[in-house]
Amino acid sequence: MTVNLDTKSIDGLGQEMYNLIAELYPICRSITGNGVRQSLKILQQHIPLEMHEVPSGTPVFDWTVPKEWNIRNAYIKDETGKKIVDFQESNLHILNYSLPIHQKMPLSQLKEHLFSMPDRPDWIPYRTSYYNETWGFCLTDRTLQSLPEGDYEVYIDSSLEAGSLTYGELFLPGQTEDEIFLFCHECHPSLCNDNLSGVALVTFLAKYLSQQSLRYSYRFVFAPATIGAITWLSQNENKVSRIKHGLTVANVGDPGHLTYKKSRRGNADIDRVVPYVLKASSQNYEIADFSPYGYDERQFCSPGFNLPVGSLTRSQFGTFPEYHTSADNLDFVQMSALVNSFETYLSVIDILENNQTYLNTNPKCEPQLGKRGLYSMYGGKQTAPSDRMAMLWTLNLSDGEHTLLDIAERSNLNFSVIKHAASNLENSGLLKVCSSSGDKG
Amino acid sequence: MTVNLDTKSIDGLGQEMYNLIAELYPICRSITGNGVRQSLKILQQHIPLEMHEVPSGTPVFDWTVPKEWNIRNAYIKDETGKKIVDFQESNLHILNYSLPIHQKMPLSQLKEHLFSMPDRPDWIPYRTSYYNETWGFCLTDRTLQSLPEGDYEVYIDSSLEAGSLTYGELFLPGQTEDEIFLFCHECHPSLCNDNLSGVALVTFLAKYLSQQSLRYSYRFVFAPATIGAITWLSQNENKVSRIKHGLTVANVGDPGHLTYKKSRRGNADIDRVVPYVLKASSQNYEIADFSPYGYDERQFCSPGFNLPVGSLTRSQFGTFPEYHTSADNLDFVQMSALVNSFETYLSVIDILENNQTYLNTNPKCEPQLGKRGLYSMYGGKQTAPSDRMAMLWTLNLSDGEHTLLDIAERSNLNFSVIKHAASNLENSGLLKVCSSSGDKG
Amino acid sequence: MTVNLDTKSIDGLGQEMYNLIAELYPICRSITGNGVRQSLKILQQHIPLEMHEVPSGTPVFDWTVPKEWNIRNAYIKDETGKKIVDFQESNLHILNYSLPIHQKMPLSQLKEHLFSMPDRPDWIPYRTSYYNETWGFCLTDRTLQSLPEGDYEVYIDSSLEAGSLTYGELFLPGQTEDEIFLFCHECHPSLCNDNLSGVALVTFLAKYLSQQSLRYSYRFVFAPATIGAITWLSQNENKVSRIKHGLTVANVGDPGHLTYKKSRRGNADIDRVVPYVLKASSQNYEIADFSPYGYDERQFCSPGFNLPVGSLTRSQFGTFPEYHTSADNLDFVQMSALVNSFETYLSVIDILENNQTYLNTNPKCEPQLGKRGLYSMYGGKQTAPSDRMAMLWTLNLSDGEHTLLDIAERSNLNFSVIKHAASNLENSGLLKVCSSSGDKG
Repeated sequence: MTVNLDTKSIDGLGQEMYNLIAELYPICRSITGNGVRQSLKILQQHIPLEMHEVPSGTPVFDWTVPKEWNIRNAYIKDETGKKIVDFQESNLHILNYSLPIHQKMPLSQLKEHLFSMPDRPDWIPYRTSYYNETWGFCLTDRTLQSLPEGDYEVYIDSSLEAGSLTYGELFLPGQTEDEIFLFCHECHPSLCNDNLSGVALVTFLAKYLSQQSLRYSYRFVFAPATIGAITWLSQNENKVSRIKHGLTVANVGDPGHLTYKKSRRGNADIDRVVPYVLKASSQNYEIADFSPYGYDERQFCSPGFNLPVGSLTRSQFGTFPEYHTSADNLDFVQMSALVNSFETYLSVIDILENNQTYLNTNPKCEPQLGKRGLYSMYGGKQTAPSDRMAMLWTLNLSDGEHTLLDIAERSNLNFSVIKHAASNLENSGLLKVCSSSGDKG
Repeated sequence: MTVNLDTKSIDGLGQEMYNLIAELYPICRSITGNGVRQSLKILQQHIPLEMHEVPSGTPVFDWTVPKEWNIRNAYIKDETGKKIVDFQESNLHILNYSLPIHQKMPLSQLKEHLFSMPDRPDWIPYRTSYYNETWGFCLTDRTLQSLPEGDYEVYIDSSLEAGSLTYGELFLPGQTEDEIFLFCHECHPSLCNDNLSGVALVTFLAKYLSQQSLRYSYRFVFAPATIGAITWLSQNENKVSRIKHGLTVANVGDPGHLTYKKSRRGNADIDRVVPYVLKASSQNYEIADFSPYGYDERQFCSPGFNLPVGSLTRSQFGTFPEYHTSADNLDFVQMSALVNSFETYLSVIDILENNQTYLNTNPKCEPQLGKRGLYSMYGGKQTAPSDRMAMLWTLNLSDGEHTLLDIAERSNLNFSVIKHAASNLENSGLLKVCSSSGDKG
Repeated sequence: MTVNLDTKSIDGLGQEMYNLIAELYPICRSITGNGVRQSLKILQQHIPLEMHEVPSGTPVFDWTVPKEWNIRNAYIKDETGKKIVDFQESNLHILNYSLPIHQKMPLSQLKEHLFSMPDRPDWIPYRTSYYNETWGFCLTDRTLQSLPEGDYEVYIDSSLEAGSLTYGELFLPGQTEDEIFLFCHECHPSLCNDNLSGVALVTFLAKYLSQQSLRYSYRFVFAPATIGAITWLSQNENKVSRIKHGLTVANVGDPGHLTYKKSRRGNADIDRVVPYVLKASSQNYEIADFSPYGYDERQFCSPGFNLPVGSLTRSQFGTFPEYHTSADNLDFVQMSALVNSFETYLSVIDILENNQTYLNTNPKCEPQLGKRGLYSMYGGKQTAPSDRMAMLWTLNLSDGEHTLLDIAERSNLNFSVIKHAASNLENSGLLKVCSSSGDKG
C-alpha cells in the first residue's frame, strides 16, 4: 500500500493556523489552570481532543503535580494611583505562578520582585517561579528605570490551590499499533512562536491526518512543558514502547530556517528521515546533535525511556532575541513559515508511512521486465532513464534488509521515484512487503 | 607457499591479443547462433574451452532461452537496384535478431525500421530486438538523410527457430576448491572494445594461468550478455558458493583509464584488492560504487546470489562515444591498453593468491631475529630498513586475524615487500599459514 | 569516590628530577651489570624499589638472558703513549658489551672496530653489540680522521661472564587489583633524554602516587630495553591480564612537543585518554599510530600479549639528531619539559582514576534538581550555565554504557567539569557507580 500525502488540500492553511494563533494569543496560560483549559477547548473546535486532569499532589516520577494556579488581575500603582504595570495589558507582566498579594511597599522593596531586560529596554521578559513560592512582575526596563522613589501599591489577584494539571491528547488509530508521536507544549502565555505556532501546526496536522488512511497510528499530545511531559510519561508508561518515531513541535512560525535536533539515539529512523527531507528541499537548514536541554525531547530521551523522539523547529529555543519576551508576538510569526513547516512535517510523515522493506519475489537474476511492459523495446542504448534505474535498484536491494529510504539514498534517486517504482513492481507481483512485527494482521 | 605471477613471460602478448580480436571482428555474433559457435571454436585454438548448448525454450529463472537466430545476408536496394545498405559490408547494419523479410515498400514505411545516430552522422549504431519479433536496419545518418522517396527492396535472409544458446567454459583446478571467476560477454557482433577485448584478455589470462601452480581454482565463462549470464547461473546454481572472488571483464582495450566497479557487497575482498592494485600503480583510475546497471555483475550481484563479483574495465559501458557504434572498431583498441589491462588483472590475481593469513609461531614478545640471520649486527642506529620493518609488522599482526594485505595497508609497505617478508619468516619457522575452510587438505 | 591529582605539591619537582638525572648520568649502564645495580640503588633513596636478579642463561621466550657485562676501564693509546680515546672521559667511547682486549695493532686493523658519525664530527655515537661477541670503540669523527698511521695500543678491562640481569620493580596496591603499568628502560649509559629522563619521571611519579589513595593498583618497572621487557614478561606472564592501561616512558625531557604512540589495539582506553589530555592542553602534540618499532611497547604489544600499552614521549625515538649520541647530555634535557611531561602523566592518571561509569538512579525523566538545591530559582532564561549542563549531560548519559570521558566528549564539556558534576550528583543520591568486575569489594 502506498500512502500519498500531498499538499494540494492545504490551501488557506497558513491563514487558518495564523487565525488560531491569534485566537489563543491573549489567554494567560501556565503549567496548570484555566488558561490551559480554555485553550484546549478552542482546539476542540478543530479536532476531537480528549482532555485529561491530573490532581495536584499526584506523584510523577521524581516530581509531584503542583497546585493549580489561576490569576484574574494584577497591577502596580504608583503614589498617584496610576497603574504603571497592568496584567490586563500583557499577561507577561506577571511572574508566572505568583502568589496573591495586596500591599504597599517602598520602591527598594518592590524592586526585589521586578524583572526587566536592560539590553532590550522596550521588551517585557517572560519569567516563571513554579517551584519557589513568591511573587513578582516583569516589565520593560524603560519603565523600571523611570520609577521614582516612593510607595507603590502591589496587587495580585491569584490563587495557588489544590486542583489539577490539564493536558489534551488525540489518538488516531492506523493499520498498525506502531505509533508516531507528536508533542507540543501549550503552557506559555502570550508567546506566539514559542509555542502557539507548534500548537497550531499540530492541531492542523492532526486534522489533516485524520482524513487519511494511514499505516501508523498517531498520538498528539498538548501538555505543559517539563512537568506536563513528565506527567504524561508517568501516566502512559506502558504505552511508550509503541512509539516508533516522534517529534517535539515548537517554534515553527518564525522566519528562521528549519532545525532538526536529533534524538538521544542519534541513529533512529527519525534521525535519518528528517535530515533527508531537509536535504532534499532546497532550503537552508541545520542539524543539531541531541543535547539534554531544550524542549521535552529531554524527558522522552531520558535514559529510562530513550525514545526515538527528535525535535523539528525553525529557530532553536534560546537562539533568537525574541525568545521568551513580549517581542514573540503576532508580528513575529509568518504564514509562509507556518506553511513551510507544515509541509516539511507532512513530507517527513510521507516517508515514514512509505518507508517499507520489500522482498524481491524473483531474487535470482533480474526478472524480465520487458514481458511485463516495464521495459523499452529496443536494446543497445547508452543510458537508462531514472524510472528504469529506480526499478533496477529497488529489485536489487529488496532483500528484506533495505528500506525504500535506504534504496533512495544508495541509488541517489529521489524517495518519491523509488516509492513509485516499488508501487509498480508490487503491482506486477515482483515485490512484496516484508511483514513487520508491528503489523496488526 | 608463495605464488609469483610475473609479467616477464608476456612479451608479445599485446600483439597476440590484438590478432585474436582482429580474427573475431568480422563474425556476426548474437546471443545465440553460429557466430557464437564459430567464435568459441577460434578460442579453442588457444585454450581447451568446453562448449555448452542450452536448448531454446529452457526456463532459466524468470526467463526462457530464446529461439536461435542465424543470418546469412541482408540488404536494402533502391529503385535503381543499388544496395544502399549491405550486411556484407558491416554486420552492424542489421537490427540484431531481425526476422526474415523480402518485400518492396515505400520510404515512409521503410523508415519505421531504420536506426541512425543524427549526432554521429557517419557511424552505424548497434541495436537489438531480442524479445520483440520485428526487423530493422541500422545505418549512418548521412545515408538515411540522403534517401530519395521511392520504393525500396528489403531483403533479410535470417532464421529464428528452435535451436540453442551456446556458451564456453574453462575450469582450472587449483589447490583448493575455492574459485576465482572471470566472465566475459561474447555476444556482440563487430564491436572491438565491447567486448572482443574482454574475450581476448580472458583467453590469454586462462592460457597464462593454466601454466601456473595456483592455490585457487579458476573458472572462465564466455557467454552472451544478460540471458547468457542468467542461463549459466541457472545451470550452475549449486556451484556458485565456491566463487570467492569474481570479475566481469569488458572494455579492456580502449585508451581510457582503468575503472573498478565494486560488487554489491561493497566490502568483499575483491572490492579491496582491485582498488589496492590500482592505487599502487601510478596510473589514473576510477572506483565506482555498485549499480544494478552495466555488465553481468548485475546478475551475479542480484539479491538471490549477491556474489563477490565486481567489474574491471577501462572506460565504463556507455561512457565513451564509440560505445555500441561502428566506431568501436580495430582502430579503437590499443595493444598497450590491452597489455596494461592484462598486467592489472595479473596483479590482482597475484594478491588474491598470496593474501593469506598467518600465525606467528612465537607470539609472545619479538623472536630473536639476529640468531636466525634476519637482523643486522650492531645496535643503536636510528632507523630500520623496510625489509626489517616488513618482518616486524608481519610478526606483530600475524595473529590469525590479519591477511598480508591487511598488514601491507596498516604498515604502509608494499604488498610485495610484505609477501617477501612472510616468505622469509615462514622459511625460518616463525610463521605458519592459518588453515582456511576452503583448503582441500 | 573522586580522586583529585593536583600539581600543587610538585613545586621544585623539576629541580629534583634534574638532579637525579645528573646523579645517574656518569654511570656506565648496559643491559646487565653493576651500572644498572648502582643506578637502581640510587632510585631506592626515593622509592622502595624491589631489585630482581635473573641468572644468565635463563630462557625467556625465544631469547636467553645473556652473560653479565662489566667494565672498569678502556682506552686507545697512540705510539707516543697518549690516550686518544679514554673510557674515563665518556663511557659512550666503548662499544657496549665489548670483550676484554689488550693488544697492539696497526691503524688499518683498529679502524674495523671504530665507530663515528661523519655528519656530526664532534659527537660520539652510542653503539652496542649485545649478541655478537666483539669489541669496539666509538669516537668523534674529528678524532678518527686525525689518527696518523702507526701502531695503537688497545685496552679494554671488561668481563663477560655468567651473572644476572637486574631490574627494579615497585607495586602500589590500590582499591582494585586492576593495574596501571609504567615501564622505563634504564640500560643506556650516559644518555640523558633517552632515558634518564624517563627513569626520573617514573621515580617521582611513583613517589607522588604512593602518597595518594587510589582506585587502581600501580606497577612501575625499570628494566633494560628489549631483553629486560622480555624477561619481565616471561617472569610475570600470569599477572599481565591485570594491566588495564600502560605506558612506556622515555624521552620526556627534551624541548620537543609531546607525542603519543598508540597501543597495538588502537582503541584501548589509554589510546583515548592520552589524546584527550593532549588535546585539552593548549600545547602542540602529535598522535602516532602503533608501529612494531620503537620502545618496549613492541614487546607488550606483541600478538601473544596485545596489552593496552602505548608510549608517551616528547620527541619520538630516532627523530632528533641528539638521539643515541653524546649530545644527549645534561644540556639537552630541560627542567620545564620534565615538569610539563610529569603534569601530563598526572592528568592522564587523573582521568583513568575518575573515568567511571555511573547509573542514574532516577532514569525516567529528569529528576527535580531544584528541590535538591542544584537548580536556580527563576525559570525562563535563555541559556544554562556549564555546571548545570554538566549535570544534565551526566544524568542523561549515566545509563551504565557511558564513562565520564564519553560524557565529556559528547557534551564538549571539560572532563573536570563533568567529574565535578558527577561528584555532586553522587552526593545527592542521583548517581551511583556501576560496579566493575575488577573491583575488590
